[in-house]
Amino acid sequence: MTLGHEFCGTVERVGDEARAVKVGDFVSAEMHVNCGHCHQCRLGQAHICQNLRIIGIDQDGAFAEFVKIPASNIWKLDAAIPEHYGAILDPLGNAVHTVLAGPVAGQKVLVTGCGPIGLMAIAVAKACGSSTVFATETNDKRRAMAKKMGADVVLNPAAEDAVGKILAETNGTGVDALLEMSGNPTAIQQGFKSLRAGGRASLLGIPTENVPLDLVNDVIFKGATVQGIYGRRMYETWVQMTALLKAGRLNLEPLFGERASLDKFESAFTLLQGGLAGKILLYPNGLPR
Amino acid sequence: MTLGHEFCGTVERVGDEARAVKVGDFVSAEMHVNCGHCHQCRLGQAHICQNLRIIGIDQDGAFAEFVKIPASNIWKLDAAIPEHYGAILDPLGNAVHTVLAGPVAGQKVLVTGCGPIGLMAIAVAKACGSSTVFATETNDKRRAMAKKMGADVVLNPAAEDAVGKILAETNGTGVDALLEMSGNPTAIQQGFKSLRAGGRASLLGIPTENVPLDLVNDVIFKGATVQGIYGRRMYETWVQMTALLKAGRLNLEPLFGERASLDKFESAFTLLQGGLAGKILLYPNGLPR
Amino acid sequence: MTLGHEFCGTVERVGDEARAVKVGDFVSAEMHVNCGHCHQCRLGQAHICQNLRIIGIDQDGAFAEFVKIPASNIWKLDAAIPEHYGAILDPLGNAVHTVLAGPVAGQKVLVTGCGPIGLMAIAVAKACGSSTVFATETNDKRRAMAKKMGADVVLNPAAEDAVGKILAETNGTGVDALLEMSGNPTAIQQGFKSLRAGGRASLLGIPTENVPLDLVNDVIFKGATVQGIYGRRMYETWVQMTALLKAGRLNLEPLFGERASLDKFESAFTLLQGGLAGKILLYPNGLPR
Amino acid sequence: MTLGHEFCGTVERVGDEARAVKVGDFVSAEMHVNCGHCHQCRLGQAHICQNLRIIGIDQDGAFAEFVKIPASNIWKLDAAIPEHYGAILDPLGNAVHTVLAGPVAGQKVLVTGCGPIGLMAIAVAKACGSSTVFATETNDKRRAMAKKMGADVVLNPAAEDAVGKILAETNGTGVDALLEMSGNPTAIQQGFKSLRAGGRASLLGIPTENVPLDLVNDVIFKGATVQGIYGRRMYETWVQMTALLKAGRLNLEPLFGERASLDKFESAFTLLQGGLAGKILLYPNGLPR
Repeated sequence: MTLGHEFCGTVERVGDEARAVKVGDFVSAEMHVNCGHCHQCRLGQAHICQNLRIIGIDQDGAFAEFVKIPASNIWKLDAAIPEHYGAILDPLGNAVHTVLAGPVAGQKVLVTGCGPIGLMAIAVAKACGSSTVFATETNDKRRAMAKKMGADVVLNPAAEDAVGKILAETNGTGVDALLEMSGNPTAIQQGFKSLRAGGRASLLGIPTENVPLDLVNDVIFKGATVQGIYGRRMYETWVQMTALLKAGRLNLEPLFGERASLDKFESAFTLLQGGLAGKILLYPNGLPR
Repeated sequence: MTLGHEFCGTVERVGDEARAVKVGDFVSAEMHVNCGHCHQCRLGQAHICQNLRIIGIDQDGAFAEFVKIPASNIWKLDAAIPEHYGAILDPLGNAVHTVLAGPVAGQKVLVTGCGPIGLMAIAVAKACGSSTVFATETNDKRRAMAKKMGADVVLNPAAEDAVGKILAETNGTGVDALLEMSGNPTAIQQGFKSLRAGGRASLLGIPTENVPLDLVNDVIFKGATVQGIYGRRMYETWVQMTALLKAGRLNLEPLFGERASLDKFESAFTLLQGGLAGKILLYPNGLPR
Repeated sequence: MTLGHEFCGTVERVGDEARAVKVGDFVSAEMHVNCGHCHQCRLGQAHICQNLRIIGIDQDGAFAEFVKIPASNIWKLDAAIPEHYGAILDPLGNAVHTVLAGPVAGQKVLVTGCGPIGLMAIAVAKACGSSTVFATETNDKRRAMAKKMGADVVLNPAAEDAVGKILAETNGTGVDALLEMSGNPTAIQQGFKSLRAGGRASLLGIPTENVPLDLVNDVIFKGATVQGIYGRRMYETWVQMTALLKAGRLNLEPLFGERASLDKFESAFTLLQGGLAGKILLYPNGLPR
Repeated sequence: MTLGHEFCGTVERVGDEARAVKVGDFVSAEMHVNCGHCHQCRLGQAHICQNLRIIGIDQDGAFAEFVKIPASNIWKLDAAIPEHYGAILDPLGNAVHTVLAGPVAGQKVLVTGCGPIGLMAIAVAKACGSSTVFATETNDKRRAMAKKMGADVVLNPAAEDAVGKILAETNGTGVDALLEMSGNPTAIQQGFKSLRAGGRASLLGIPTENVPLDLVNDVIFKGATVQGIYGRRMYETWVQMTALLKAGRLNLEPLFGERASLDKFESAFTLLQGGLAGKILLYPNGLPR
């Protein structure tokens, strides 16, 4: 099977019934394909379809020369959005989905984990009126990046008492929202300890094992709301993301590092494995201009 | 300190500023006393006030001959509501708070744990349009009571594959809402396994230890919403509960077992320790009529 | 063009891609056909699609011997639901959409106008935990029917001071929710006067002219929420409606009047024009059994 | 009676029970005083209390040398917020209440009427992630101010086809949210015509007469949500407003015009009557510094 989970490119052929897509359109796509008839699809929760198939995982993906995508999943890129943003809409969608899963205007927010999606979440939260964005991250480069993306308070939980500092900065109350982007059990637990009573915890990061939660103190007595976040809402998230990008409300330039011709992909992958926080743009037809 | 966490009785004296309460009123009371000025109080989340004090736990309670309660916490009992219902409004409020913390009309609901609050939750869910109420409980008497309260499917997780049966009865989809009333780690885990993707889990039961949750499969990939439920919303829950009772929508009679004069309290307590699901009414001035 | 806006019947042929529908299925259908790619469709608001087409109005409808309906719009009827209920799912969906557009459990509700959809709304509201259902209607037969459907207080606004009585019955507060089913300007105005501050008004009835609203007193100072209700949510409403019917929570039998063979349609139409509140069932292949 | 509906100043005396307020605190106040025991107060809707009294209208107000305000209504001003912002929290609260009564992140918003509250709403909407803010206003100075406050498209409905332009700029779809700040019947009607199907209309402006609404096309068929907005939510709005101000997310400086000693109040009032959009600061003890 051909891998390749994210996609942007130009439409080469369209089926008969695809009235909103034209050959030559520059497009991205939601690579989660829903069945359309299960309980969740009927309830407007297509992103958690019971028969979900993921292009690039469950079927041939975008690393081939051509990829076949249902017309309904195609997302036309607005001309006002810089072309290279087309390459990061999938993870940006994760970030937008997470941030906008609850109130954010005037809210104190904690982002645990500053990989690319965490960094994007910082920018989205600030653009949407968050009053204070806290971020925790053990990697130095990523912490520096978090500052660039607009985080107000950036903490290294390996070196300092992150929970204590967050509580101190919030008069002992804690943050209104936890946006969990790391999947790290310790980060998750610290996130919950930093959350105020009545707050919301939106969990996107994927732990690799069971996480022992202090349900009584961190969820029940707190009257907290915990949300599992998966994929992107189809297609509310795409609408919101496009609107924010088109309006120039999200400056994601710090995220883009190297740009290289696709044939240089090996050195790019080596860079990424070094824990780089940003994104490397690979151009199939050589670098632009 | 005098214990006594729940209260109904007659008002003997009122302070100057208590305009809505009169001497002689037959009343119940919210025994959680909020501070009125913390972050949560200002946000309309008084039930999770940072400075919450509980009458009967943090200060003298209702087992004394008189109890002092802030006027704002007094809840006048409508004459249309049977007097003995006044004795169970605190736990009934827990049940109403839990059931109405999310959609219930036309929803499939699972109540895990059929103690008094779980039993009340069954009645509330049915009264509010739940299409199917599943209940799990290991105690035989309580399962019998669950049936009486209106549960459609009652399962004994100690003797049968409760999760498997719930999934089978829901076409493999799972229930729309989990109402967790047991605090039992196994019940919590089974509850999450029985929950559909996109469902809500409202947790009221209080586990006595950390609960290892399969966050990835049970919350994140499922796009589930988990809610900690504490106390009663002040006073939305009281308004809802009163309206349902006054309209005769809740038949809680099966819950009331023995009635005894207060001086017989010892035999009553012995009965309760035997795992009885219902409530025993004690009358301070002897049995009525 | 062939008329016929509502449909239930048996599937005769299915297209290649229609995986969830089989020949021989007994089905109903959402007769509003959405485009799938406009702003509203992308936001999960297909019922207000910008390019909505209605079968039986914008294209050939169900009064022909065969009707062509997109597979996505087909709704399979559960075997547990009485067959003749299949004939009224479209208006029942209007009622369910209206009632469940806001909270209803423990709420005082006013239904203005007791035509078939208003009558259904009464049953739905009661099934979903409404504490008191008020209904207003000038037609005697319909008022009698409203009582049968479960309305607690039925008023004739042509003969009595309906607003005054509703306010008196609610301690001067007014109802929590107005479900407007008449389209009559006077009923709309009286509905708003009967609504409590902070209540919701869900408008389904279609006035034939501009309605002068006292926006200041009835909406703004009241902090009211007014909702326009159109069609059925696709397909949340169908899921909810099916769940309520399957659970036997809605007794709509009083609505069904005459049953006749389709060739007797003329006398049926004459009956309807006389202001009958209920529904007449016409059988194309003669009366059952 | 002494007028004076808005207040900021220093606390001179506190009652015994006022634990969160101290003599010498620099404070503002919610001047709407709720009863605490009516249906709305019990439901957390104190801003539409049935027994609401307004200081400066129903009882002696802030134009006296001292004003008596319930401790619960006092709002302590954070030291991080510029002192002169204390003088405009009441109308800013109206703006925040209106903007945050529904989603705003990534939303296209129309503000009809650019008096002080409309101008503030523009700033709040931009700070909270609105992608495009349209504003309509017939007064030239106010339109210029709207631009300064961050409106993307400012239109003069007396001189151009505002509805047509808004529809053209939104691909014929209309705006996601109407924030009605004028109370002008024509502006209200144009606002509704500019609203997309499924959008929300939040009405704060107070018309002086009944407004004939095209309920069918503007509300019902559109599936629109209309919200009456009154006062400020007590005290969610104050929390949100403070958070936004403290974080420096709202630049309201363009709103502040002249500053004068209180004894020059007459010339200030003359300026205001000339249709000035901004606010004039009057200092009781002479100009600062």
